[in-house]
Amino acid sequence: MEELKMTPWDVSGELNDSAYTKLVEKFGVDLINEKLIERIGKIAKGKIHPFLKRSIFFAHRELNLVLDDYEKGRPFYLYTGRGPSGKMHIGHLLPFSFTLWLQKTFDVHLLIQLTDDEKFMVKDISKTAIEKYTNENIIDILSLGFDPKKTHIIKDYESAKMMYYYATDVAKHVTFSTVKAVFGVTDSDNIGKVFFPSMQIVPAFLLSALTGQKMRCLIPYAIDQDPYFRVARDVLPKLGYYKPSAIISKFLPALQGSSAKMSSSKEESAIFLDDSREVVRKKLMKYAFSGGKDTAEEQRKYGANPDMDFSFLEYSFLEEDQKKVDQVYNDYKSGKILSGEMKEIAANKISSFLETLSDNREKVKDRIDDYILDPKKIKL
Amino acid sequence: MEELKMTPWDVSGELNDSAYTKLVEKFGVDLINEKLIERIGKIAKGKIHPFLKRSIFFAHRELNLVLDDYEKGRPFYLYTGRGPSGKMHIGHLLPFSFTLWLQKTFDVHLLIQLTDDEKFMVKDISKTAIEKYTNENIIDILSLGFDPKKTHIIKDYESAKMMYYYATDVAKHVTFSTVKAVFGVTDSDNIGKVFFPSMQIVPAFLLSALTGQKMRCLIPYAIDQDPYFRVARDVLPKLGYYKPSAIISKFLPALQGSSAKMSSSKEESAIFLDDSREVVRKKLMKYAFSGGKDTAEEQRKYGANPDMDFSFLEYSFLEEDQKKVDQVYNDYKSGKILSGEMKEIAANKISSFLETLSDNREKVKDRIDDYILDPKKIKL
Repeated sequence: MEELKMTPWDVSGELNDSAYTKLVEKFGVDLINEKLIERIGKIAKGKIHPFLKRSIFFAHRELNLVLDDYEKGRPFYLYTGRGPSGKMHIGHLLPFSFTLWLQKTFDVHLLIQLTDDEKFMVKDISKTAIEKYTNENIIDILSLGFDPKKTHIIKDYESAKMMYYYATDVAKHVTFSTVKAVFGVTDSDNIGKVFFPSMQIVPAFLLSALTGQKMRCLIPYAIDQDPYFRVARDVLPKLGYYKPSAIISKFLPALQGSSAKMSSSKEESAIFLDDSREVVRKKLMKYAFSGGKDTAEEQRKYGANPDMDFSFLEYSFLEEDQKKVDQVYNDYKSGKILSGEMKEIAANKISSFLETLSDNREKVKDRIDDYILDPKKIKL
Repeated sequence: MEELKMTPWDVSGELNDSAYTKLVEKFGVDLINEKLIERIGKIAKGKIHPFLKRSIFFAHRELNLVLDDYEKGRPFYLYTGRGPSGKMHIGHLLPFSFTLWLQKTFDVHLLIQLTDDEKFMVKDISKTAIEKYTNENIIDILSLGFDPKKTHIIKDYESAKMMYYYATDVAKHVTFSTVKAVFGVTDSDNIGKVFFPSMQIVPAFLLSALTGQKMRCLIPYAIDQDPYFRVARDVLPKLGYYKPSAIISKFLPALQGSSAKMSSSKEESAIFLDDSREVVRKKLMKYAFSGGKDTAEEQRKYGANPDMDFSFLEYSFLEEDQKKVDQVYNDYKSGKILSGEMKEIAANKISSFLETLSDNREKVKDRIDDYILDPKKIKL
């Protein structure tokens, strides 16, 4: 089995439970336990997001301090981001839908950073292409339905006057040795990649800096982004801010069942947001990793393993009616539902979701400017 | 004798003729010879700047190609800069007066970069202090009398949206290894210092980038800044621009005759732009390194060495009437003028110069905005 290698720019190797356990130890994060989920559940009036229920978001750093602040009526804010080097697939978008759930649950401000600068410097891609993806990705993200009053988009290049100004505060406190040790950057990497962590760390204190109100920042991210926020936790107190808190996810299940990230490099490797109903169906039928048995007969007899079935999992992420999900889970597990049927159910759910996004996209695409971070418009 | 150590941030050791000869070889620059000075002299209608005459600007890179372009009626532009971490002394300002002479001689555009970001990241100094020095330094520089239509100031922080955008083009082509080798940066330096060369290289192609017209850029700088432009010469052709040309100076003579740079850390180590007539006189009398003899008697008998006399040199940089300079040179050398008299002559000249600057400063200080680089206002 290939050993796991992970930086924010590359993941290779097997990402199974034991790999995650090792990462938790190595990075020094805490697991999200039942008690913490219950505590969130109370605030969310019992509606726990499937990503918490299914341990997709499975680890955290000082999430309890954020909840303490919330319960005491102190403000905090959320920060998440996206590296815009390609079209978004469903595996890219779902974490934003989790962030949206957090935003709605806690009624807080949210910064969304588009790291166009990073992608330009780290990938063999033109600024023109990056800009196109950046603007498309923003529309995709916003089509989930974020509140324009509390959601603030940062395009690094567009906001560079502000971002670079604060990034130098971070950079002054981070040595090359640290970046080498934490990110696995080498001497032959370019100096833009070396500097970039400063830019990704800025939003972790930016809302405090801009408003003059010291607030905690909660950052939902996939575990490969952890190096940024380990460094952030070291630097931010030196600048007079709180260490950022984190809620950390595993990688989402990939269409073809690879245990690494869903890749965005090949059309058939993921379900893209502009895939038609027919294409979604075909991709599931042809590629989707199944937890079911090889033949209908065996499936009827032994049932499926829904917990590793791409189609069931996607369905479970998108179906809001928990009773329906439980029913499908049980029926699939017992063998009452066949693999092909599970794929049909998922295809319908995914396609409906994509169609809703598509409708929203039309509404949101001329309103992007309302979402671009403007320090003067922030109302805590 | 202490061996010379030089980076853009630190110079220590003896800077004598043999040290400069070694640097010329090490950096691979060409000496400015008589023929080149003659060629410039023709364009300048015989008025050669004292810095060329006295070999303060002594080396170059492809200055001939700039002159070729000029003679063929093709545009080029000038770029120089200042790290605003303190008050300016006369040794800081005189190179700008040379640049002004170049601008007038060739009637070309000039970019002046204030590297406030660099100074913040490299020195133990606050952003507030840096900002104060930046604005003061700009007024000092502009008080020399630059043409607002062709002189464009860049404050890195203020212009970071534009500067960072282009800096990432540079950064993508520069590895940490290169910065290590060329600048002597180490693993324990901060990542802002590592990235910064990208920012200092931008103005070497910025006017071409902003106007869409590919032009040569001629950069006057002191030899400690050479690493930036060696890297620039490697990177710019990859971005579709000309390698920048250079006209390179030695360090100016220091008040106390140290062969290193005039320091700005101690009041008595240099003549500052706000020094009163009385202070200038006192500093020269008390500290100025003299090429004269120890006693009046010996001086009368053997004469002085004006070429290493701080007071004579400053006088020669500031007196526009070449005949007067020659007269003073001969009289000092022959012993007709005593050291104290030479100091009086220089004190008067310097003080008059500072008083003119002071008057100009009042006129210029409310017009700074006219000089800040605005891409829309550039008229080639």
